[in-house]
Amino acid sequence: MYNKIVIAPDSFKGTMTSAEICDLIGQTIQESFPGTEIVKIPVADGGEGMVEAYLANTGGRIIRKTVTGPKFQPVESFYGLLKDKKTAVIEMAAASGLPLAGDHKDPMHSTTFGIGELILDAMDRGCKKILLGIGGSATMDGGIGAAGALGMKFLGRDGNSVPLTAEGLGLIHNIDTSTMDKRLFKLEILIASDVQNYLCGPVGAAYVFGRQKGATDLEIEKIDHYLYQFCELIRKQSGRNLHELPGMGAAGGIALPFLAFLNARILSGIDIILDIANFDKKIDNADMVITGEGKLDGQSLGGKVPLGVAKRAKKQGIPVVAIVGDVGCDYDKVYEYGISAIFSTNKAAVPFENARLTCREDLRFLVRSLMCFKKI
Amino acid sequence: MYNKIVIAPDSFKGTMTSAEICDLIGQTIQESFPGTEIVKIPVADGGEGMVEAYLANTGGRIIRKTVTGPKFQPVESFYGLLKDKKTAVIEMAAASGLPLAGDHKDPMHSTTFGIGELILDAMDRGCKKILLGIGGSATMDGGIGAAGALGMKFLGRDGNSVPLTAEGLGLIHNIDTSTMDKRLFKLEILIASDVQNYLCGPVGAAYVFGRQKGATDLEIEKIDHYLYQFCELIRKQSGRNLHELPGMGAAGGIALPFLAFLNARILSGIDIILDIANFDKKIDNADMVITGEGKLDGQSLGGKVPLGVAKRAKKQGIPVVAIVGDVGCDYDKVYEYGISAIFSTNKAAVPFENARLTCREDLRFLVRSLMCFKKI
Repeated sequence: MYNKIVIAPDSFKGTMTSAEICDLIGQTIQESFPGTEIVKIPVADGGEGMVEAYLANTGGRIIRKTVTGPKFQPVESFYGLLKDKKTAVIEMAAASGLPLAGDHKDPMHSTTFGIGELILDAMDRGCKKILLGIGGSATMDGGIGAAGALGMKFLGRDGNSVPLTAEGLGLIHNIDTSTMDKRLFKLEILIASDVQNYLCGPVGAAYVFGRQKGATDLEIEKIDHYLYQFCELIRKQSGRNLHELPGMGAAGGIALPFLAFLNARILSGIDIILDIANFDKKIDNADMVITGEGKLDGQSLGGKVPLGVAKRAKKQGIPVVAIVGDVGCDYDKVYEYGISAIFSTNKAAVPFENARLTCREDLRFLVRSLMCFKKI
Repeated sequence: MYNKIVIAPDSFKGTMTSAEICDLIGQTIQESFPGTEIVKIPVADGGEGMVEAYLANTGGRIIRKTVTGPKFQPVESFYGLLKDKKTAVIEMAAASGLPLAGDHKDPMHSTTFGIGELILDAMDRGCKKILLGIGGSATMDGGIGAAGALGMKFLGRDGNSVPLTAEGLGLIHNIDTSTMDKRLFKLEILIASDVQNYLCGPVGAAYVFGRQKGATDLEIEKIDHYLYQFCELIRKQSGRNLHELPGMGAAGGIALPFLAFLNARILSGIDIILDIANFDKKIDNADMVITGEGKLDGQSLGGKVPLGVAKRAKKQGIPVVAIVGDVGCDYDKVYEYGISAIFSTNKAAVPFENARLTCREDLRFLVRSLMCFKKI
C-alpha cells in the first residue's frame, strides 16, 4: 500500500542512534508492507550523534584523539573523517560537552581548547573542510579556547595571554591573529547550529543557555557582558559586526573568532546534512517521510531535525509523520511546518529511567500499530 | 473516508469515564472526518463505572443510599435504576470497594453486607432483576455478608450466627435459608465478572487477589481454606458443586450463596452490557470499532472490555483499534482476539500522577494524529 517511505530521524538522545531508529522503523514497516521501498537517511542537527549520522550517509571513519577537556583535563575524544578524506565532522560535545564537565559544572572556567586541537589534527590529516556541530557544550568562552589552540592570541591589558575561558574573555584587550596556523586560511569551516539565538541579551548565549550549563545568576550577567565586550573588540579589529547574526548565541559564542577571522559560516545543521545526503532528490515520489527526535516541542522550531526535514518535504508536497520520544509543550506549532501527525513511543506512564529500557520494543510496537491502522 | 465508527471503551480508571472518552474520541474524529457517523457505546465489565455506562446506554437514574461499608462503617453508596424500573445495576465497589476500606485494609474482617442492603432497597422499589458488577472489592467473605443482609443465616457449631466476614466463614456449621426475604425467589441476579478464576487454590480468590486486598500470607492461606470449607458445606446443603465454576473466585467468592440458593448466574460483564446496548446490531457496517481501557495487558484476556468488544467485532469482520492508557506486559496476546492495533495515550515519559493531569488533551492529541495519519 506504500511504494516508498523515507525515514530521516534525529537520534533519540540517551537511547537510540539515528541509524538504529532508521533500521527499526524500516524493518517494522516491511513486516507489514513487504513491497515498500525504504530509504534511510540518518540525520542530525549538530548535537550528539552528528558524526555517526554523517558517516552513515557518506562513509568514512572515526578518528580518536585525546584532547583537552572543558576543565583542562585530558579527555578521549573523536571526530569523523569522511570518505573524501578532505572533510572532518566534529561534534563539540565530544571534546567540550556537558557530560565531560562532570558533576560540578563551571562554565566560567571551562574551555573549548579541545575543539581547536581536533581541528589541528584534522588539518594534519589533510582536511580542507570542517563541519563543526555545536550542540551540548559545557562552555561559554566565546571560542577563545578553540581559537587559542589554533594559534590566535588573546592578550590582556598587560600584554600577557588571558586564560582561555569565559573568565579570560573579560580580560581581553587585544587579539593577535598573526600567530595562528597558516593552514587555517585554506580551511572552510561550516558551523552547524540548531538555534537562532543572538550572542547577547535576553535571548543570548548566557541568559538562555547559562543555567543549564551551571552558571549562577551573577555569572550569567558577567558572561553576557564579557561576550558583548569581546564582540565589540572583534568589530573594531576585524570590521565584522557579529552582534546581530542569528546563531552566534549557540554554544557560548564559540563561532565568534571563526566568523571574525576565518573562512567560516553558521548554517542550519539539519540543512547541511540533508544537502550532503541528497535528501531533496531521495524523497522524490515518496508516499511519506518519517522523521523524529527524542523530544519534540516548541523548541523544535529553532532548527531541529523534524522541522528541517518537514520544511523540505512540504515543498514537494510529501506528508511528514514525526515519531518522537516525548511530546512537550507547544507542539501544535509544528503542524504548520508540514508535520501532519506526531506519535510518541511512550506506551506506559513511567519516568524516562524506565521508558528508556523498553525504547526499542516501544518504537517497534508503535510502528507496527500504525501500519496495522493503515490497513484498516 | 470513514462511513461509520463505533466507539466502545471501558472507563480509564482514575481519569475518565467511558461516556467522556466516547465524546472526546467522537468529537476529534469528526473534526477530521465531518461526515463520519459516530456510534457511542459506553461500556464496562463489572468494575468502577458500570452503573454510569448502563445508564448512558439505557437511561434511568442513580439511587443513593447509606449502607454498611466493608468495615461495618456507614458509607454513602448508590446504584442504578434502569429506565424499565425493574432492573437495578449495582457496583460492588460502591458499597464494599477497596477505597472504602481506607488505609488499613483488613479483608479478614471486612463484609459485603452493604451489597445485600442495596439489593433489598432495589427490591423495595420493585426491581425484579439485579445486575451485580463485582470488580474492585475489598472483601473476601464468600458472600455471607450480602446473603446475611438478605436474611440467610450462617450458624456456628453453637447455633449462633457467625460474624459476616471472612473470619466468620471459617466458623460456619450450618446455613439456614428459611429465614431469607421471600422476594428473592422471584429475583433474577446476573453477576457480571471480568475474571475466570476458580474459588480456591493457586488461581483462586485468596491466592490471586488476597495480596491486593491487604491479606497477609497466613490470612490468604486461611481464607482459601475457609472458602473451600464453605463451598463444601454448600455442596452438601444445596447439592450444587461450585468448586470448579469459572468466575467463582472473583470478589472474594461473593457469588457463592447467590448461585447456591437463588436464581443467579455468573456472566461475562462485558457481554451483558454489549447485549443490553445491542452492540452486535449497532456495529453493522462499521468501518472500525474503537475500544480501550486504562491499562491493557495479558490480564485483559480474562474478560475485560477490549477483548469482549473485539471478539464480537471479529465475528462480523470489523477491525478493532484499542486506545488505552498504559500498555502492559504480554499485550501481544490480544492480537489474536481481533484487536488490530493498540495505541497508548501517553505522550511523555512521566509517572501516572503527571500523565493523569493531561489525559484529555493526550487522548485528543492521539486521535487527531491517527486521523491525520489515516489521510496520508
